[in-house]
Amino acid sequence: MLAAASTAHSDPVGGVVLALAVILIAAKIGGDLATRLGQPSVLGELLFGVVLGNLTLAGFDGLESIKHDPSIDMLARLGVLVLLFEVGLESTVAQMMKVGATSFVVATLGVAAPFALGWGVSAWLLPEASAYLHAFMGATLCATSVGITARVLKDLGRSQSTEARVILGAAVIDDVLGLVILSAVTGVIAAADAGSALSLGAIGWPLAKAVVFLGGSLTLGVYLAPKLFSFASKLKTRSVLLATGLAFCFLLSWLANAIELAPIVGAFAAGLILEDVHYRGFTDRGEHGLEELIHPISAFLVPVFFVLMGMRTDLKSFTQPGVLGLAAALTIAAIVGKQACSLGVWGRGTDRLTVGLGMIPRGEVGLIFANIGLGLVVAGERIVDAATFSAIVVMVIVTTLVTPPALKWSLGRLSKS
Amino acid sequence: MLAAASTAHSDPVGGVVLALAVILIAAKIGGDLATRLGQPSVLGELLFGVVLGNLTLAGFDGLESIKHDPSIDMLARLGVLVLLFEVGLESTVAQMMKVGATSFVVATLGVAAPFALGWGVSAWLLPEASAYLHAFMGATLCATSVGITARVLKDLGRSQSTEARVILGAAVIDDVLGLVILSAVTGVIAAADAGSALSLGAIGWPLAKAVVFLGGSLTLGVYLAPKLFSFASKLKTRSVLLATGLAFCFLLSWLANAIELAPIVGAFAAGLILEDVHYRGFTDRGEHGLEELIHPISAFLVPVFFVLMGMRTDLKSFTQPGVLGLAAALTIAAIVGKQACSLGVWGRGTDRLTVGLGMIPRGEVGLIFANIGLGLVVAGERIVDAATFSAIVVMVIVTTLVTPPALKWSLGRLSKS
Repeated sequence: MLAAASTAHSDPVGGVVLALAVILIAAKIGGDLATRLGQPSVLGELLFGVVLGNLTLAGFDGLESIKHDPSIDMLARLGVLVLLFEVGLESTVAQMMKVGATSFVVATLGVAAPFALGWGVSAWLLPEASAYLHAFMGATLCATSVGITARVLKDLGRSQSTEARVILGAAVIDDVLGLVILSAVTGVIAAADAGSALSLGAIGWPLAKAVVFLGGSLTLGVYLAPKLFSFASKLKTRSVLLATGLAFCFLLSWLANAIELAPIVGAFAAGLILEDVHYRGFTDRGEHGLEELIHPISAFLVPVFFVLMGMRTDLKSFTQPGVLGLAAALTIAAIVGKQACSLGVWGRGTDRLTVGLGMIPRGEVGLIFANIGLGLVVAGERIVDAATFSAIVVMVIVTTLVTPPALKWSLGRLSKS
Repeated sequence: MLAAASTAHSDPVGGVVLALAVILIAAKIGGDLATRLGQPSVLGELLFGVVLGNLTLAGFDGLESIKHDPSIDMLARLGVLVLLFEVGLESTVAQMMKVGATSFVVATLGVAAPFALGWGVSAWLLPEASAYLHAFMGATLCATSVGITARVLKDLGRSQSTEARVILGAAVIDDVLGLVILSAVTGVIAAADAGSALSLGAIGWPLAKAVVFLGGSLTLGVYLAPKLFSFASKLKTRSVLLATGLAFCFLLSWLANAIELAPIVGAFAAGLILEDVHYRGFTDRGEHGLEELIHPISAFLVPVFFVLMGMRTDLKSFTQPGVLGLAAALTIAAIVGKQACSLGVWGRGTDRLTVGLGMIPRGEVGLIFANIGLGLVVAGERIVDAATFSAIVVMVIVTTLVTPPALKWSLGRLSKS
């Protein structure tokens, strides 16, 4: 049997399964405590992760290796893909098209307002800094991390509400706009460093690719998916529906990534495209539907994402001198800025406040932005210094943690009225 | 959203999801073809993997990176753990104890006979080599890779037969014996290289740890599992049963690995310990049982293991001059040697031939053994040279590929009579 030979080298799966056991136990205990306090489970997973990840403050560093274990990191990334796929399965392309115009306006406002506020805060509190930093801070505030919101809506059984569709659609568009803005800002800075002018391609090319991907996958997908599943239903082996669904999700995630969009945009699009009717060939002969089959996989992998995100939250960021003022101002700008989204919601029956709150979390995207900032240089000088970086990290943490209780309150308010 | 910032660095999940999509599609098409030819699906997954992994012979090397991608490797390792956990769930500790004595005799014969034959073949065909090589070749033939057999029995719906239990029990004991023999052989060689005598601890210590682990986990586990699940059933959040079951499986896998047994021994023990009655607290309120929840996870991860194992099969091993004679003799010794297992089966109603055939595959274990062999040195000279290594690899490939059709035929013969 495997690794009877392990006298010589232990199986590398050992450390990974121990980390997974710790994460799953933490997720369930955290989820239980959050539920008892009337909060979504995901808040408990995040906070229990924060506790585990900061045990070094209490002198225990046995869990530090989990934070940057490449296998756990990959499982977390697969987890968030599966989550967005699962959320996508709950809606159809037609349902999303219905809220498409609203989502577009919501996303545009949710990018413009935070950009302006971020620039303003930076110019006000760091007057000696260059306009490049102000632009970068603005760009950093644009991003929306849809994982948290998608999960809260799922925890509360509201993934199929109009608000959920507006937020998710806006988050997809936001991803495209964020990509364009970041390309523009880093392009301007790189051009300044090289002493040349910004090319229009730095803005136009990512936008064009994203529009072609989304338009192409949603229209072609709706046409091809029934044929694909009809072919698959004729295969004479087990678990074909699940394998086909996952392969479809993975291929679109890869495609999105290949054109430099977030892979979760592809996973979400895959979920939108697939509908129950496509796999009747399977369910008619008594097999489980795709949503039911995906659920145990998401129950396994999704908590890895949220507990790990919690564990990577460094509480020491909050204690650095000179950081808290900037962090507080940035956080307020981040939260207030996204409330502009609510102005984009029209028509009856869609709660504006919920949409605004749902767009707040910056999550891992904010951190990716901040990391890119650390690498930006003009004329040998770094644009983003360590204190500014920490302030961005604090903003990311706070926006991520306030969203679950805020959404829970906002949706609770609705069901009472 | 995630990686809107990916202009700067693409998400590493991209390559992994593409590989997963290729693997899942290959597994289902291969499984379909095998089923149409009346063979177990796993044979199709292996063979389709062999084809994908040897496309370089046709000039295409686009899939080479999958073979050694660390994330895919880890998912495959998790896959075989989940498979053995799932197979373990289908039996109980009490049922295994009933076949325990038979399994023990089967395992002992299945280690002794191949060891003697392996030594003999080596002494006959490589007369100029040292006794160290003969001992090592004997040890290499002892291992049983239970993954293939477990999967074939599952494909054919025979996991709960007496034959299955005897084979699985024997494979676990075989793992312990293989560990002891390998420790002894490598210990003797290391002692010879250092010019000192072999310590008894090199044999006694691994044996003692393994016995304590198996005895301890099976008795303590049966006592503790009901309390664990009764506590878990009170947690107020979702998917607690699945998370608890997986965490239990992962913890025992880790523990097995920590004492240098194969992690799958721990996963299998975890499956044996858990019984439906333990999680009535969940199923009584309408939740799915653990087997049903594990199934989609195994349907996702298990094909990764088998397709990857196929992909790593290097067909060029078969073409090296001077290798085929030794390879053929070793393979025959490997197959014939394990047929001694059938002598250990007594009583009516247990098919001896099926047990002997089920013990044949060496799979990944044989490769691990062979790799250890490559590192063995006495007085500056390597014990195992490249040609001998290739012969071992061919033996591993053939024993792995002949088992599914052989078992299928043997079990078919039974159901006819």
